[in-house]
Amino acid sequence: MKRIAVLTGGGDAPGLNAVIRAVTKTAINVYGCDVLGIIDGYDGFIAPGGVIPLNLASVRGILPRGGTILGTANRGNPFARKIIRDGKELVIDVSDEVVRSIQELHLDALIVIGGDGTLHVGTELYDKGVPVIGVPKTIDNDVGGTEVTFGFDTALMIATEALDRLHTTAEAHHRVMVLELMGREAGFIALHAGISGGADVILIPEIPFNYDSIIRKVRERAEGGSKFSLLAVSEGAKPLGGQEVYARSGDAVYVPRLGGIGQVVSEYIQKQGFEARVTVLGHLQRGGSPTAFDRWLATRYGAAAVRTAARGDFGRMVALRDAKVIDVPLSEALAVPKRVNLNGDAITTARGIGISFGDE
Amino acid sequence: MKRIAVLTGGGDAPGLNAVIRAVTKTAINVYGCDVLGIIDGYDGFIAPGGVIPLNLASVRGILPRGGTILGTANRGNPFARKIIRDGKELVIDVSDEVVRSIQELHLDALIVIGGDGTLHVGTELYDKGVPVIGVPKTIDNDVGGTEVTFGFDTALMIATEALDRLHTTAEAHHRVMVLELMGREAGFIALHAGISGGADVILIPEIPFNYDSIIRKVRERAEGGSKFSLLAVSEGAKPLGGQEVYARSGDAVYVPRLGGIGQVVSEYIQKQGFEARVTVLGHLQRGGSPTAFDRWLATRYGAAAVRTAARGDFGRMVALRDAKVIDVPLSEALAVPKRVNLNGDAITTARGIGISFGDE
Amino acid sequence: MKRIAVLTGGGDAPGLNAVIRAVTKTAINVYGCDVLGIIDGYDGFIAPGGVIPLNLASVRGILPRGGTILGTANRGNPFARKIIRDGKELVIDVSDEVVRSIQELHLDALIVIGGDGTLHVGTELYDKGVPVIGVPKTIDNDVGGTEVTFGFDTALMIATEALDRLHTTAEAHHRVMVLELMGREAGFIALHAGISGGADVILIPEIPFNYDSIIRKVRERAEGGSKFSLLAVSEGAKPLGGQEVYARSGDAVYVPRLGGIGQVVSEYIQKQGFEARVTVLGHLQRGGSPTAFDRWLATRYGAAAVRTAARGDFGRMVALRDAKVIDVPLSEALAVPKRVNLNGDAITTARGIGISFGDE
Amino acid sequence: MKRIAVLTGGGDAPGLNAVIRAVTKTAINVYGCDVLGIIDGYDGFIAPGGVIPLNLASVRGILPRGGTILGTANRGNPFARKIIRDGKELVIDVSDEVVRSIQELHLDALIVIGGDGTLHVGTELYDKGVPVIGVPKTIDNDVGGTEVTFGFDTALMIATEALDRLHTTAEAHHRVMVLELMGREAGFIALHAGISGGADVILIPEIPFNYDSIIRKVRERAEGGSKFSLLAVSEGAKPLGGQEVYARSGDAVYVPRLGGIGQVVSEYIQKQGFEARVTVLGHLQRGGSPTAFDRWLATRYGAAAVRTAARGDFGRMVALRDAKVIDVPLSEALAVPKRVNLNGDAITTARGIGISFGDE
Repeated sequence: MKRIAVLTGGGDAPGLNAVIRAVTKTAINVYGCDVLGIIDGYDGFIAPGGVIPLNLASVRGILPRGGTILGTANRGNPFARKIIRDGKELVIDVSDEVVRSIQELHLDALIVIGGDGTLHVGTELYDKGVPVIGVPKTIDNDVGGTEVTFGFDTALMIATEALDRLHTTAEAHHRVMVLELMGREAGFIALHAGISGGADVILIPEIPFNYDSIIRKVRERAEGGSKFSLLAVSEGAKPLGGQEVYARSGDAVYVPRLGGIGQVVSEYIQKQGFEARVTVLGHLQRGGSPTAFDRWLATRYGAAAVRTAARGDFGRMVALRDAKVIDVPLSEALAVPKRVNLNGDAITTARGIGISFGDE
Repeated sequence: MKRIAVLTGGGDAPGLNAVIRAVTKTAINVYGCDVLGIIDGYDGFIAPGGVIPLNLASVRGILPRGGTILGTANRGNPFARKIIRDGKELVIDVSDEVVRSIQELHLDALIVIGGDGTLHVGTELYDKGVPVIGVPKTIDNDVGGTEVTFGFDTALMIATEALDRLHTTAEAHHRVMVLELMGREAGFIALHAGISGGADVILIPEIPFNYDSIIRKVRERAEGGSKFSLLAVSEGAKPLGGQEVYARSGDAVYVPRLGGIGQVVSEYIQKQGFEARVTVLGHLQRGGSPTAFDRWLATRYGAAAVRTAARGDFGRMVALRDAKVIDVPLSEALAVPKRVNLNGDAITTARGIGISFGDE
Repeated sequence: MKRIAVLTGGGDAPGLNAVIRAVTKTAINVYGCDVLGIIDGYDGFIAPGGVIPLNLASVRGILPRGGTILGTANRGNPFARKIIRDGKELVIDVSDEVVRSIQELHLDALIVIGGDGTLHVGTELYDKGVPVIGVPKTIDNDVGGTEVTFGFDTALMIATEALDRLHTTAEAHHRVMVLELMGREAGFIALHAGISGGADVILIPEIPFNYDSIIRKVRERAEGGSKFSLLAVSEGAKPLGGQEVYARSGDAVYVPRLGGIGQVVSEYIQKQGFEARVTVLGHLQRGGSPTAFDRWLATRYGAAAVRTAARGDFGRMVALRDAKVIDVPLSEALAVPKRVNLNGDAITTARGIGISFGDE
Repeated sequence: MKRIAVLTGGGDAPGLNAVIRAVTKTAINVYGCDVLGIIDGYDGFIAPGGVIPLNLASVRGILPRGGTILGTANRGNPFARKIIRDGKELVIDVSDEVVRSIQELHLDALIVIGGDGTLHVGTELYDKGVPVIGVPKTIDNDVGGTEVTFGFDTALMIATEALDRLHTTAEAHHRVMVLELMGREAGFIALHAGISGGADVILIPEIPFNYDSIIRKVRERAEGGSKFSLLAVSEGAKPLGGQEVYARSGDAVYVPRLGGIGQVVSEYIQKQGFEARVTVLGHLQRGGSPTAFDRWLATRYGAAAVRTAARGDFGRMVALRDAKVIDVPLSEALAVPKRVNLNGDAITTARGIGISFGDE
């Protein structure tokens, strides 16, 4: 193994720099490789100045830092690149250009760090002969094949701290506080943070909710003397079919004024006579210094990716299973996206301690 | 001094419990007083169960906790109380009832902890003969007569941490990140947190801004190689007259889709060709455990309020000046609300290190 | 299941209250049980006032709080209780008394939360017929049968923050900073935090170290331009045989002045001509609010313990394996204490990124 | 003003980098100056490679980082420099060499950031004609002439968090927990953090303490049902005259085994029959990312120092008074070191809420 390259794709997540550092250090210390950094995801292969050398000095001090020193591009899919030509938006396939660039660089391995989208592109490039190793990264924890991805623990910590803060205000003001969290398809952040932050209601994409059920829970608490409630809501949470536009006695049809599902739920609760407020945590979930766990996992992933490359096991993704870092086929990991297990002990536990999922 | 009472009014702020604890401990330990807690602000005087005894056990363990064990009411002004009668909203004056209740309790002092609104009511009650002592509390730091109020430092810490987080994402994604912060009339949070969190543009109510000026700054940075920018924006920031609805080449008249000024500014920047995102910190600024400084200041305020009461100096508010806790007339403190000094060293410093206020 | 009891034993750990809360809520909500809290570990069974009822109100607000509302006793082994009689210390067996007390309480289950010692006692009581369920708790992560115990993640976060802080001072002052961490028999905290906090040398009980090896690493870094180094040292780290009292050119025999192994290592480095300082993190590792992960794990453990009890599967311990909470025989879990796997990917990763274990 | 230089001396403190950044940005943006950074304090003037250019790129990203990018030297006094010659330690005066080097650099101003020692040297250099401006920095807050120095607020936050952590362990284990904090001559950290962290006893250098008084407080609490106590102890706290070696019934003379005053106090308490533990916070107080307040103050100080230089007001130090940054003569600021005001409202407040200073 003489030369490897590393890139980061998709939304940023705490721990990207820790992976880059571990890749670089391991490749140089253990294998005596050259290491190249690709700037702004796959785009770097075809942009001027998109490939830079990485050495031990390049990665000094980046372990505790959020973001990525390599930059990232949200929509950098070379198989479907959006361009503007003659005033019109076109989608073109530049993947051959990317493959050619990779061949000209004489890479022995390309380590791609990213979520679903970035890893899918990696799989397609692997099918075209590129020696790809994947490193799974999501805030949402929705990548299959691994127990957990880095970035998730930091997001949980931030979401839990937010619930802690909202809790005191909810209690002081006798309010219902709604926190909207990331998770378009998978409800892991709302589920875990909701339990860790003492939420009374958790709404996730995997469990369609019923407005009445939420109100019952809020009312039951108020009648029991707890004149406040805390809701943790995934951005992808959805009401049961037919409730998207919901009626209410006195209204013709109630149309929420604006915003995401957190806003909609908050307004509904307010209309039922409870003071409610919504907070959208948004980008705060993905920035800043990674937790100890995420630094640890990201470092292990980076080092394992290089070892996997050295063994020549391409088309695979590093993964955490049973407290060990192993590697699995990329195709297998991406076959089925991970969702909250509705029969797992987490949901059972949450229901048992009195948390409502809005489906009772 | 035989019996004193304490209440908290207005929006909650980190440190309320520290004041309540200091009031209770000082009154009991130093003066051998009875202490009463009034529930949910002034409302407690006329609500059933609204007056409770406080002793050393009541305040055990509350120093590090956000919120207020006494509850608060946002709109609990007894001089203008909103009620619903026969389906209509009425505003009635129940202040005589409150005064009577206070007289029946034989209070030697009433310590009111709150912001502008709560303290104004306190002044009016004082004018009606109630032995009031005020303790200033705001997140915004806009109460006059004192260098600083408790709650402000905690809000700054949270806002600065948020900017730290957004910074890494801005850099990784080459984005303009806008953080909307509290401050309807006074820009202290955005100004201080903006400087502490490394913002490139700070928009505050005291300095009307120009959209072009913001874009110039963002473009100047991008051309200099910093393809990202960070904005700290007070919720009360306002564009220069005539720009409220702003035009743009190609548009007829641009009308922002939704939301507060942060959203408006973010959309404008996006329309000028820069990727932009907004985050509204909202309620996260006011909850949770107070900083060391706020606990310290709140404790000193609480104790000083009791000592001021013991001296019989009513109609006064405790305040921090020149690193000392003193007391000032409530009327004087409330006469002129505090605003950012446009000629002070803070603004000069910010401009000097290259921060734009959108007015250049 | 009519009545269950819960106790906490051994050193406190962040998450104990979260377990107590989950046990209480699950037992009441799901099974309609009475719940008893045993004060100060097993001692509570034979001390006056040692058994209290727990209800939903008892556990309100304790989720984010460190410590344990039930208290704990460090040396509360009823099979070997230390007492003072006639001025002499005696060790007596009061286990029969404890068993009798448990029988008189008509417990359907006793949930014991603790580390090795507390769980061993639980096993012995189980052998005497007590319906025991164990919940593993350690800061050190040295309990077998489970991937991880609660409390460990919080300890790691604190240790990693401490390394972050020491890093800046080390760099500014060109110093070697040594951080002594918990871990008498197992080096998990120093290993994980050392990697997450960017340590250059990690010393753990499982790998006897060589003083020369440490100095070589420190010197190599200094010669490479990094005039500082960071060491993460388990309190149980030991030099290679024969080095306990170590000689140095010029000294007759060097005898360290005082303190633990961190101090000894720091003094040795100082004597070799590098400025060195030691910090002992000590009790700071075990107090305070648990991380999101520890709250989540502790809650799942507590709920699972009650479910296990309801199934009548006594003599078992809840455990985390493969991201699921399961239960395993207590005897099996305690048979072999957990130690760092010297051939695992963690050690390989650490060595690969250039970390020395003092054995090269 | 064509060229200015900046250096950092003495122990590191959070905020040094914020000052360096503000100095550099202000000098370049506002005055168009060249800026030089002096490496490792005054030593940089006479060491090879000790003077480097600073530009806007040099200070990018350093605002939130602890330590100092310029390095510091603990004992870098050019008037009394320690050297080894012929195996003997000598103290020589190299100040003329430093002054010559400064003259050759044609500096229009030299900004020195440091505590008492560094600022004293600055004053002496000023007397020799060097255009010095001082910026006060201490963890301890013991520099006169200013209400507060940067670094202090961060130290308080860390110390308060430590007390929060120890509190839960103290309560769970019925222990007396002693936290030893910085402060050799001035007790500000222990006083402020002790109040903010809910300490029961605070020992500071300004108030000699009596062992019996401490025990009385601990016993009084235990008898009142609080079977734990928390002590915040300055490293410079001293027992009343005659108690340095203290006797105890049964002992001949009690000689503490090891360590600082925290250890001594802890052992004494343990010997009186209470379980006690000591933690020495040490270097953890001075590293890591500065608080919002310290970043804000440090930035204002740095900018104000450049403005003061531009006005030609040398031999002065920037200072915070009455919420404004002003400047005062260095000689005046250093004339009387700052100590806790024994008659101020802070001490009165602490006593009033039941805190013992060991002198009752």
